[in-house]
Amino acid sequence: MSSLPRRETLAPASAFSEPEKAALYRAIETRRDVRSQFLPDPIDHALLMRLLDAAHHAPSVGFMQPWNFLVIRSPEVKAELREAFTRANDEAREMFDGDKRALYSSLKLQGLTEAPVVLVITCDHTRGGRVVLGRTHNRDTDLYSTVCAVQNLWLAARAEGVGVGWVSIFHDADLRAILRLPGHVTPVACLCLGHVAELHTEPELQARGWRQRLPLEELVLHDRWPENL
Amino acid sequence: MSSLPRRETLAPASAFSEPEKAALYRAIETRRDVRSQFLPDPIDHALLMRLLDAAHHAPSVGFMQPWNFLVIRSPEVKAELREAFTRANDEAREMFDGDKRALYSSLKLQGLTEAPVVLVITCDHTRGGRVVLGRTHNRDTDLYSTVCAVQNLWLAARAEGVGVGWVSIFHDADLRAILRLPGHVTPVACLCLGHVAELHTEPELQARGWRQRLPLEELVLHDRWPENL
Repeated sequence: MSSLPRRETLAPASAFSEPEKAALYRAIETRRDVRSQFLPDPIDHALLMRLLDAAHHAPSVGFMQPWNFLVIRSPEVKAELREAFTRANDEAREMFDGDKRALYSSLKLQGLTEAPVVLVITCDHTRGGRVVLGRTHNRDTDLYSTVCAVQNLWLAARAEGVGVGWVSIFHDADLRAILRLPGHVTPVACLCLGHVAELHTEPELQARGWRQRLPLEELVLHDRWPENL
Repeated sequence: MSSLPRRETLAPASAFSEPEKAALYRAIETRRDVRSQFLPDPIDHALLMRLLDAAHHAPSVGFMQPWNFLVIRSPEVKAELREAFTRANDEAREMFDGDKRALYSSLKLQGLTEAPVVLVITCDHTRGGRVVLGRTHNRDTDLYSTVCAVQNLWLAARAEGVGVGWVSIFHDADLRAILRLPGHVTPVACLCLGHVAELHTEPELQARGWRQRLPLEELVLHDRWPENL
């Protein structure tokens, strides 16, 4: 393999134009976690494949590409997912106290049966063979690659007028049973996808008084972690 | 808290224009994992803050925002990271056999001392308090949020003409010791950042014959995991 000719593939790559940069930053800043705004309109095949292709162009450790895209349109599977969510969410609610519990109960945290497509993005830990370049010392890097795919898809969806909501309140065993996942595959993200005509202008949890955005400056540190933090 | 007035923050949100979509897809498709193309030019404060602000606008479980941004410009810290990388990489090389080991040895897998900025993005597992909305059943979701921040930054960097390389070949204990991280903080990504004038037109590992891009169609499944896969 080391005798393969090295293809020279370097090409000029400068900064984008100002309008191009603005488009990217707009996707990043106006992306929302959608639970309630899904329209019933179907997502057509070409659009869905553009979104999945964006995900597939995520970086991956050792070019492992550990992801699969489980596209769920079956009302039966969606209903099972919603039941599993409800079971876990009933437990979750009890973990909060007083006012926080009341507010929690008023939040809509999933759109599993309204969204025309539920997309589960998985990570196959065996994808790259016995040893994967870059995954030799941190075994979680394949999960991280899979999350990069989620975020690529989320931004592409924003630009396409498709809302995405990440539902994470499940018992792992429930997800595995419903989706019939083999043991070497981890369900990383369960995403609700649907066209939207409107979105929140700020994160819904902020608008509802759950939690505020932290000042960026307070999150920036220099060279080493400070002793007093 | 449940008596707080609900701010109505919904606004129209349609698909982007075709040129805006094209800009986003260009960032996604031309983003590369950079190891060798860093220019020595410094990254100025305003540019770095735009990149960190893009990261800070990632989705996070329960709006937890678990990330910190450790900006490393100190040659001493960079040299220590490079030593730790070299130690781990010497071990990694031995895990590959024959031709694969020879090819591995010829790959440049980090640019820690050439890059003007090394950025370590961390996850503080205590950030959201005792119970975090959405993190009640999968404790890894805060790590996933942090990776979403990495990917936002990576795409913004591409648009700004800044290359990013994710270095993952470290012993976790080495990273923690060098950066003096407390136990409740996980180092998720160690990123090399620098201006670039050129980039590879395809993933470098593909150009070098390490591994090819998988056909997207083979990664798409429907409703439940098939029995024969």
